[in-house]
Amino acid sequence: MTGTTLDDYTDRYAQRVRGMTASEIRALFAVASRPEVVSLAGGAPYIAALPLDAVGEMLGQLASEHGTSTLQYGIGQGTLDLRERICEVMALSGIDVACGASPEDVVVTVGGQQALDLVARLFLDPGDVVLAEGPTYVGALGVFQAAQAQVVHVAMDDDGLVPEALEATIAEVARSGRRAKFLYTIPTYQNPTGVTLSEERRERVLDICERAGLLVVEDDPYGQLGFDGAAPAPLRARRRDGVFYLSTFSKTFAPGLRVGWILAPHAVRDKLVIANEAQVLCPSAFAQAAVATYLSTMPWRQQLKVYREVYRERRDALLSALTDLMPEDTTWTEPNGGLFVWATLPEGLDAKAMMPRAIAARVAYVPGVGFYADGSGAGNMRLNFSFPPPERIREGVRRLAGVLEQEADMRRVFGAGPIAGDRPGTREPRPGLA
Amino acid sequence: MTGTTLDDYTDRYAQRVRGMTASEIRALFAVASRPEVVSLAGGAPYIAALPLDAVGEMLGQLASEHGTSTLQYGIGQGTLDLRERICEVMALSGIDVACGASPEDVVVTVGGQQALDLVARLFLDPGDVVLAEGPTYVGALGVFQAAQAQVVHVAMDDDGLVPEALEATIAEVARSGRRAKFLYTIPTYQNPTGVTLSEERRERVLDICERAGLLVVEDDPYGQLGFDGAAPAPLRARRRDGVFYLSTFSKTFAPGLRVGWILAPHAVRDKLVIANEAQVLCPSAFAQAAVATYLSTMPWRQQLKVYREVYRERRDALLSALTDLMPEDTTWTEPNGGLFVWATLPEGLDAKAMMPRAIAARVAYVPGVGFYADGSGAGNMRLNFSFPPPERIREGVRRLAGVLEQEADMRRVFGAGPIAGDRPGTREPRPGLA
Repeated sequence: MTGTTLDDYTDRYAQRVRGMTASEIRALFAVASRPEVVSLAGGAPYIAALPLDAVGEMLGQLASEHGTSTLQYGIGQGTLDLRERICEVMALSGIDVACGASPEDVVVTVGGQQALDLVARLFLDPGDVVLAEGPTYVGALGVFQAAQAQVVHVAMDDDGLVPEALEATIAEVARSGRRAKFLYTIPTYQNPTGVTLSEERRERVLDICERAGLLVVEDDPYGQLGFDGAAPAPLRARRRDGVFYLSTFSKTFAPGLRVGWILAPHAVRDKLVIANEAQVLCPSAFAQAAVATYLSTMPWRQQLKVYREVYRERRDALLSALTDLMPEDTTWTEPNGGLFVWATLPEGLDAKAMMPRAIAARVAYVPGVGFYADGSGAGNMRLNFSFPPPERIREGVRRLAGVLEQEADMRRVFGAGPIAGDRPGTREPRPGLA
Repeated sequence: MTGTTLDDYTDRYAQRVRGMTASEIRALFAVASRPEVVSLAGGAPYIAALPLDAVGEMLGQLASEHGTSTLQYGIGQGTLDLRERICEVMALSGIDVACGASPEDVVVTVGGQQALDLVARLFLDPGDVVLAEGPTYVGALGVFQAAQAQVVHVAMDDDGLVPEALEATIAEVARSGRRAKFLYTIPTYQNPTGVTLSEERRERVLDICERAGLLVVEDDPYGQLGFDGAAPAPLRARRRDGVFYLSTFSKTFAPGLRVGWILAPHAVRDKLVIANEAQVLCPSAFAQAAVATYLSTMPWRQQLKVYREVYRERRDALLSALTDLMPEDTTWTEPNGGLFVWATLPEGLDAKAMMPRAIAARVAYVPGVGFYADGSGAGNMRLNFSFPPPERIREGVRRLAGVLEQEADMRRVFGAGPIAGDRPGTREPRPGLA
């Protein structure tokens, strides 16, 4: 699986990283996919934590007993059965009947990626502006790039999107004679930073968007994967109107089925269905039946707890390894959920440039530059903790620390800018985004 | 399943048919989905002809024994394993190594629909012209409409696309100061007409496109479902360059898995993969493993024969029922494969207008107007023979014939135009497209 995950990144990453060709990166990742490499690069859930025998039995029955419907065409919006189950899942996060959530307004998609692509297709014209956290999900940048939209990043800190920065950015875009079409945000356990928008800021962000007439596209793949208590309620739970809520079963069940969804404002639901049909005709009837049956016959709430436990242990392993092993002046975020930590390297180090040496040292990560549309992020990297077991995570950090020391040494020999370890620093982890 | 298929059409159809609102059509089809209605409207394969127990066992094992890869993320291009199997499937149609087909240039998609959408996304800008048979696949019209492209139809007859009409249309588009981006064609057992482009015309069409510098997008979902001997070799088997070949497992295995593919010119393969990733990240690893395992462990060539036998019998049932029961001056195509017959009503009758009465008579079809971008097709309907059993097909035609007689009676009472049955005619089926 490590190989596939890396391969996956090869291509997505290729389109984002300037200065390396797709084939160079492909070659790099081909080496990185070897089993001896510790990959902190992926974004894969730990599927081995699923009860695979029981899932297999369920999937087999769906075909042998219900194949004439599960292997057949479905409808563009997705089955009512699954849309009802999706409403139960959303209710767990506080998006319930009281705030207007209804199976009628759910559109089933091919994972969270297609959910975002459909919204982009409906709203974006070439040259349009989209606001997004800086950094943000690499796949979202791919969607906005394909739509020929321009991403303007909004600053974030350890409490998520900075409301003042959001206001300033909206005003700045307006002053330039353009208008932002929507704010794309992952408020909870964000990819790539792991940061969560605080309770208090959620209301302020919504108020700012409301005043500016700015739609909000809330992407929430990780919200139910909190380790330290529940996350603040999603934005959609606070506002009926003006918020598209996007999520997926890729992180809470299994990404291989490609089932995600949009909870859309009622007025645009039909348009999304038509766009969905133009794009894929209908989501897979088999995959939908698989998820709906999983939700109705298997202990999915218990499985959420299992994932949370596994990831909490791995997050702890990553954070303590970083504290114990990383050179001074390296900082990182401390997520309360999700799959990722965002690290900031000592000044002057370039995460992309040191990739080949990291892979030679048998450790992989995703350089930060891929998560920005504006070339920022050279000194950052995203570290995944959901896939490798704790001892591998620690070993990966050990190797990574070695590479950072080596980089600092090289900079000492060849000069150029401040050098890691030369400056006084504390071993305490400091906010990666402050 | 009839219900689902009809529902499916409800939405796709809603965007195409002028003069009825989506909710009116939804209501109409809600009635039509009742079991007592004979639906000749769908496009669904007869999944009950699959060995569902064996398929179920296979799918169960894919999750229980290989879940850590099949339920995980995959790569944007699709697995090498499946792409190799796809090359074996294409070789059966004559698209083999000798004409440059390689797993390297295959991109796996979410059914044939997404294959076309990706090509459209790559090539079409708003206002672009696409040439297509008139009539053509309703889902293709949806794709081109979403891309804000303009479809210009090229006339066809019972031997398919008319080469002279193609030349004239290319010239006409050029004279208007525009340039067609590509020819979209379903040369074999076309949807909706069932017509096949003749051997001799294939070369001429390719020559014309080559001379005009026009790309060809060949959509071939039905090519391996021929009843009366093999179809002429696909266009891609005749030319290495300038032809995108699109196909799907929806008709030869099962649509519920949503697995299709593009065999792309090598130069654009990477661009298609990037577009695929922006749209869906990756096709379902589980669905891909399901198809690859089906192709490597189950008798898929034998299953093709089973489908062909079932559909041949049903095609015969439809054609003989039409000959025996339809009013004079109704004509229809006589397909050698695929799923559809295209009927032309007596002059003055409107297939869309008579839909409510047809459904009251417990028979459904798809009005022809949905298959044109220019409002043509009022006097046509598409009849499906793959899903209903032979005796139901005959009963459906009996009901449909009754509706046509009734329509003719009403026209006799209320006047307006020539009336079915008033004019001398022959009971012989005549070419529907001549």
